[in-house]
Amino acid sequence: MRNVAILIFDEVEVLDFCGPFEVFSVAGRQRNQTPFSVYTVAEESRPVLARNQLSVNPRYTILDCSPPDILVVPGGRGTRREMNNSIIIDWIKATAPRSELVLSVCTGALLLAKAGLLDGLRATTHHGALDLLREVAPKTEVLDNQRVIDNGKVIVSAGVSSGIDAAFHAVS
Amino acid sequence: MRNVAILIFDEVEVLDFCGPFEVFSVAGRQRNQTPFSVYTVAEESRPVLARNQLSVNPRYTILDCSPPDILVVPGGRGTRREMNNSIIIDWIKATAPRSELVLSVCTGALLLAKAGLLDGLRATTHHGALDLLREVAPKTEVLDNQRVIDNGKVIVSAGVSSGIDAAFHAVS
Repeated sequence: MRNVAILIFDEVEVLDFCGPFEVFSVAGRQRNQTPFSVYTVAEESRPVLARNQLSVNPRYTILDCSPPDILVVPGGRGTRREMNNSIIIDWIKATAPRSELVLSVCTGALLLAKAGLLDGLRATTHHGALDLLREVAPKTEVLDNQRVIDNGKVIVSAGVSSGIDAAFHAVS
Repeated sequence: MRNVAILIFDEVEVLDFCGPFEVFSVAGRQRNQTPFSVYTVAEESRPVLARNQLSVNPRYTILDCSPPDILVVPGGRGTRREMNNSIIIDWIKATAPRSELVLSVCTGALLLAKAGLLDGLRATTHHGALDLLREVAPKTEVLDNQRVIDNGKVIVSAGVSSGIDAAFHAVS
């Protein structure tokens, strides 16, 4: 079984994290298999207020989280704050090398960029954040015409619902 | 602005409620409009453990919830319990007549059926629950070949991700 950690933070976009949560959760269900153990993780244990006030209690904090095999970094308005939060960026930096796969959804790519994970790779993000990503990740080829970009270990997806596609891609 | 209440309960399927939550939340965002006020509602104020242990704090309980214009009833394993929970079924019965639209996703149709809301209508549900729906709703024409069925006030959608389609349909 592979651990799938989904990072959440205030103003995370709801579908960005719930889409992959659902896909990894139901993978194998029809065959009564559970190939993935999916959980949310946040900086602190307090409730996270996702976009439009959906209040979610993280299962783990970054301090007590099992090392994930797959790290999912969703997007949302909150990434503009978290991209400058060294605690979160350092956690991503420390966690990614020990993971098999790292997935970003939407503006989650900004956090991967800040953690240096997109250097030399191709990436994308929400169409409204492409210029910001280019600024944050000068060593990254930022594309505006693909929903899911597979760099091998690092999979990057575009706006919101494309995270579902990226998760299907990772599962397959 | 229209109120959109999304019912949640233990073992609600994550994408069933998050998909419509997202669609109604972002509707109008690009034009800086907020045509919908979206919130979760549960029987009690304690955290709801959605499928695969996603822990969500309901915004309202059925006692302090503003009357919704649109009521969304998602599905998931928990519906097998809630369909026999008279407190929830009575709340749906009382709330639906005062609402403009009632949407079910997946096995949420079982709860609408128990509340008598599907009598004389056409309906659908998750493909694995069609027979159960036929049993619970003998006065309903249960179809297995449509993702979204629009009965006017009552819109019924099939498995999981079709709730997103149903929400788009309602928004439009």
